[in-house]
Amino acid sequence: MGEFVFLDWNAPAPIAPESLAAMVETASTTSANPSSVHRAGRLARRVVEDLREELARTLEASPRDVVLTGSGTEANNIAVRSPFVDGHGVLLTSRLEHPSVTRVAEALEREGRARVHWVRVTDRGVVDLDDVRACLARGGVRLVAMQAVNQETGVVQPIEDVYAECIKAGVALHVDAVQALGRTATPLLGTTRTIAAHKLRGPKGIGAIVGSCGHRLHPVLLGGAQERGLRPGTLDPMAAAGFLVALRNAHLCRAGFEAQRERRDRLEASILKSFPGSEVNGQVSLRLAHVSNVALAGMAGAEAVVALDLEGVGISSGSACSAGTLEPSPVIATMHDAERARRSVRVSLGPTTTDDDLGRSIDAFERVASRLGS
Amino acid sequence: MGEFVFLDWNAPAPIAPESLAAMVETASTTSANPSSVHRAGRLARRVVEDLREELARTLEASPRDVVLTGSGTEANNIAVRSPFVDGHGVLLTSRLEHPSVTRVAEALEREGRARVHWVRVTDRGVVDLDDVRACLARGGVRLVAMQAVNQETGVVQPIEDVYAECIKAGVALHVDAVQALGRTATPLLGTTRTIAAHKLRGPKGIGAIVGSCGHRLHPVLLGGAQERGLRPGTLDPMAAAGFLVALRNAHLCRAGFEAQRERRDRLEASILKSFPGSEVNGQVSLRLAHVSNVALAGMAGAEAVVALDLEGVGISSGSACSAGTLEPSPVIATMHDAERARRSVRVSLGPTTTDDDLGRSIDAFERVASRLGS
Repeated sequence: MGEFVFLDWNAPAPIAPESLAAMVETASTTSANPSSVHRAGRLARRVVEDLREELARTLEASPRDVVLTGSGTEANNIAVRSPFVDGHGVLLTSRLEHPSVTRVAEALEREGRARVHWVRVTDRGVVDLDDVRACLARGGVRLVAMQAVNQETGVVQPIEDVYAECIKAGVALHVDAVQALGRTATPLLGTTRTIAAHKLRGPKGIGAIVGSCGHRLHPVLLGGAQERGLRPGTLDPMAAAGFLVALRNAHLCRAGFEAQRERRDRLEASILKSFPGSEVNGQVSLRLAHVSNVALAGMAGAEAVVALDLEGVGISSGSACSAGTLEPSPVIATMHDAERARRSVRVSLGPTTTDDDLGRSIDAFERVASRLGS
Repeated sequence: MGEFVFLDWNAPAPIAPESLAAMVETASTTSANPSSVHRAGRLARRVVEDLREELARTLEASPRDVVLTGSGTEANNIAVRSPFVDGHGVLLTSRLEHPSVTRVAEALEREGRARVHWVRVTDRGVVDLDDVRACLARGGVRLVAMQAVNQETGVVQPIEDVYAECIKAGVALHVDAVQALGRTATPLLGTTRTIAAHKLRGPKGIGAIVGSCGHRLHPVLLGGAQERGLRPGTLDPMAAAGFLVALRNAHLCRAGFEAQRERRDRLEASILKSFPGSEVNGQVSLRLAHVSNVALAGMAGAEAVVALDLEGVGISSGSACSAGTLEPSPVIATMHDAERARRSVRVSLGPTTTDDDLGRSIDAFERVASRLGS
């Protein structure tokens, strides 16, 4: 990529060399099917079971309660849908969630399986705890689905408080923790939790549901007996090996992201200076150290992404999951409105971002802003 | 694995060094999100789009009609379920199919979305064409789902004839071609087709639906807008790069498997000699050159797998997808009966199988058989 400055670490982080090395090692020595009974299969299975145990340890669960999936999306689909397969009730969630939660919620409502209560969201980008409490108090809630950290703003949600309310009410809490592991030091609470390797600098294409929610899990895809039938399809020991290393290095990953706080703040301040009247989305909330989401004054987010790309800097508007849809970010629209969402961009730094990268990015934003004025 | 002889190439084939090298190259240089708009995202997207075009060329379809998925299982789920999301009718399929087809068929029937006609299967392991014709003639068929090659016996199905009947009847045909690509020279016919990289010596965790069936496709998993919303979840350029190389080398893969015909025949003959009274499942049918499925006389398949493993030879009973279920292979049970299914093992050779491997395997089968007699 030559001179290109990559400031899109949240979409997702490039794979770490250590994870890649573990994948190559595993693919070269143990590429049998982990479901096979013979020695080669057992070797492949050991990699998968090592991952399962490490996930259980990290997230304080039993290895029996770890279901490996092909993505965070798949994990959220299974975890959010399951409670409504053999029961009915209210699903309490919010418009801040990833589409793999909000679209499942919409589908459950369409199918008549759930009534969805969309929790009120404040303009600071967090769910309104009073509304959570009020909804739980009314009763009939079968599942609460809340993210640990927002994918676009980096805002940390009050999961500890939500979990305490859920425990008090005797309601299961599913936490999409994809954005939290390897980025925050907070323990990942929740009855079930979704995580994915590619946000931890592991490979794409592998995720997990961890924990037992009291509701039986049901598969979304149907097929073979892998993962007790919950997630059919050949398990990939190569991806498992990369995930395992990423998990073991999660603290390094986190330190790498946290070390970007000062640079993030400098960049943010300079963007606000280049684009007077701009505002940081979720600025007053507890946020991850490496992410900045800014509503630019006088420029569409999509336009800024293209202009910055021409200057050799890669940022994003909305999340990559909604790329190609031209819909403004539902996260910023929920916090504020669609007009502000349309002006918002996400800039995310990573462990290898340097002062030189930062200087060039600041210059690029300045040049884009100055052309806007002329 | 030291001295271990791997005769389980169908479950699935170990990754080829060329595919692995392409994956490492891509992961090291272009590990951005292919949905991202900036330069790094475009580089990643180019890998994905190169794969899409190669798949379209190989399977004679338009690149628009290629949906990348996380597995063959996921592709079959989408392709078989879709026609019954916005319509009703008969699903014509057979008990020879992979569980990712048969379980979806059972679910569609349970949900009242489809009536399933399970086509008669002969003891040669092929679908009965007269029954296919009769069912189509009765009308009301919305989809025919037929595999190209069986996963346990290697028996080639009469897809050309089935396709001709489908075209005559104006009915869409979905072909699970996972076992066919890179193993047979026959063009992969069908209105839609499923393929998966890991059977081609590519990576696990990536597959595709290729072709347009006249029915609109509907997603099974819900989430982001990737693959036009049909398969949400971050696309993996690393897996795409490995799949692309595997696809380009499909002819080499096929030559490697076909070169095992003589060894397979020798091994088969020697197993029949060691276990007098044994029978080869599907022997008189057109079969892949590297697979043998034998109903052993006097020994359970699962027992043989363990005994052979202790002798340093890896084979399988049933498919790895049903490992851990203790159910006898539904394929052999459909061709014959459950008792014969329980006695059946699958031995599959691969491009790197040597005469030395073969000699040691023949000896191992002999030793296992001789202990059985004592």
